[in-house]
Amino acid sequence: MTREGLVMASDSRTNAGYDQINVCRKMHTFVQEGERVFVLMSSGNLSIAQSVITMLRQQFDSGLGLASAETMYDASRVIGEMVRRVAAIDAAALKRDNMKFNINIVVGGQIRGESPALYIIYPQGNPLRATKDTCFLQIGDAKYGKPILDRGINFGKTSLQEAAKYAILSMDATIRSNVTVGPPIDMLIYRTNALTVTDQRRFTENDPCLTEIHGQWEQGLRSIVAELPDIDFKSEKPSYYTPRPHRARSQAELDLTQ
Amino acid sequence: MTREGLVMASDSRTNAGYDQINVCRKMHTFVQEGERVFVLMSSGNLSIAQSVITMLRQQFDSGLGLASAETMYDASRVIGEMVRRVAAIDAAALKRDNMKFNINIVVGGQIRGESPALYIIYPQGNPLRATKDTCFLQIGDAKYGKPILDRGINFGKTSLQEAAKYAILSMDATIRSNVTVGPPIDMLIYRTNALTVTDQRRFTENDPCLTEIHGQWEQGLRSIVAELPDIDFKSEKPSYYTPRPHRARSQAELDLTQ
Repeated sequence: MTREGLVMASDSRTNAGYDQINVCRKMHTFVQEGERVFVLMSSGNLSIAQSVITMLRQQFDSGLGLASAETMYDASRVIGEMVRRVAAIDAAALKRDNMKFNINIVVGGQIRGESPALYIIYPQGNPLRATKDTCFLQIGDAKYGKPILDRGINFGKTSLQEAAKYAILSMDATIRSNVTVGPPIDMLIYRTNALTVTDQRRFTENDPCLTEIHGQWEQGLRSIVAELPDIDFKSEKPSYYTPRPHRARSQAELDLTQ
Repeated sequence: MTREGLVMASDSRTNAGYDQINVCRKMHTFVQEGERVFVLMSSGNLSIAQSVITMLRQQFDSGLGLASAETMYDASRVIGEMVRRVAAIDAAALKRDNMKFNINIVVGGQIRGESPALYIIYPQGNPLRATKDTCFLQIGDAKYGKPILDRGINFGKTSLQEAAKYAILSMDATIRSNVTVGPPIDMLIYRTNALTVTDQRRFTENDPCLTEIHGQWEQGLRSIVAELPDIDFKSEKPSYYTPRPHRARSQAELDLTQ
């Protein structure tokens, strides 16, 4: 989330164990043009996510839920309430088999008359809002892709195009290390006050744009590192442990310390 | 680990809960000049690590253990055996209070007549060796700092100075996000066949070299991103979900789906 709007990005890999991997879109839109836009992304149990999205769509089609929430905060509560309804249906059966009721949802969007906002909805249904200080939110395996966002994203300064590139680089870092994260990458840019979806793309594995970004990035990193000042090891005298024979003990004594 | 030798780096923050944080060196050397060098780094329970290191030193002083291992593989087994001895002393009492016997050790070094080698010793005592394909090993909270190593480190191509800079950048990424990882950073460069320690440094929080690397790095990243090609969103038509009124249901019907 930046001053100009929102960048949303999700991968498409789902798995039920390492030996059962599929492709599934994790980004879902809810739009009333000129009135309201919500973009939801989910991580965790796909079955739970599908139930939440399906029931939110039923409400939406009836003019309820996300269709009638007055504020983005209310919308986050609508989603949280739906997570709790699905928990009421499924959590006990999952727990019986030692499985966690695991779903996290990120929702970004705007309701006419308000600023855009970005929330996480936790598996317990409670929402957390992104702020100017902490302006990006991640769900799923977030650690690999966080440092590049930490270094690059600034609410007041980063343009949406720049933010989109950082999001791609963050995903790229994660895809490399976590086999449960994979392409295609769905990306959506929401410009403040657009109140509709204008910029949306799916990047497949061999997308030329992705390949170019990946290549230029790795080459660029290496050239920055090459230009960093050398580390001076001459200013400190090495100190290391060599055997202290006066402290020698017999094997019998050593055995006693075990 | 590169063709030229080894770069070892460790942070110094230890904690027993978020409200009890201390500084402690996690890098330990064992040297017989001209004969053998071992550099150990540990993560996990500090008490366990201290016991392992203390008992390895006692052995070493007696000409046993790391002092007499014939190969780096044997040395990794010496350390693993010591982890198991400490487990025999402490693991049951920890388990009684639902605490894990948690220690991982990285050991890098060289024994005269062999190439340098790098191992992880797991909490169960079994070793894993770094290879040319997977030439770096991490312990502790490894995810934040992995992408930069993935992109930068190549066994055959990366110089030790470059590898040292990548190690600093990897630590820097982790320190930013994980409050249980913090300075000073201890760093040691081992050059193949040196069979002693020559290049060793401790970087404190405000070390001018660290500050310069950090600053140049963040600036460099932003300039690479600025030069990346813009993402083209015009080639794909947006598709989004708007209400489907013909599917509208009454609130009573909706309640039934819950």
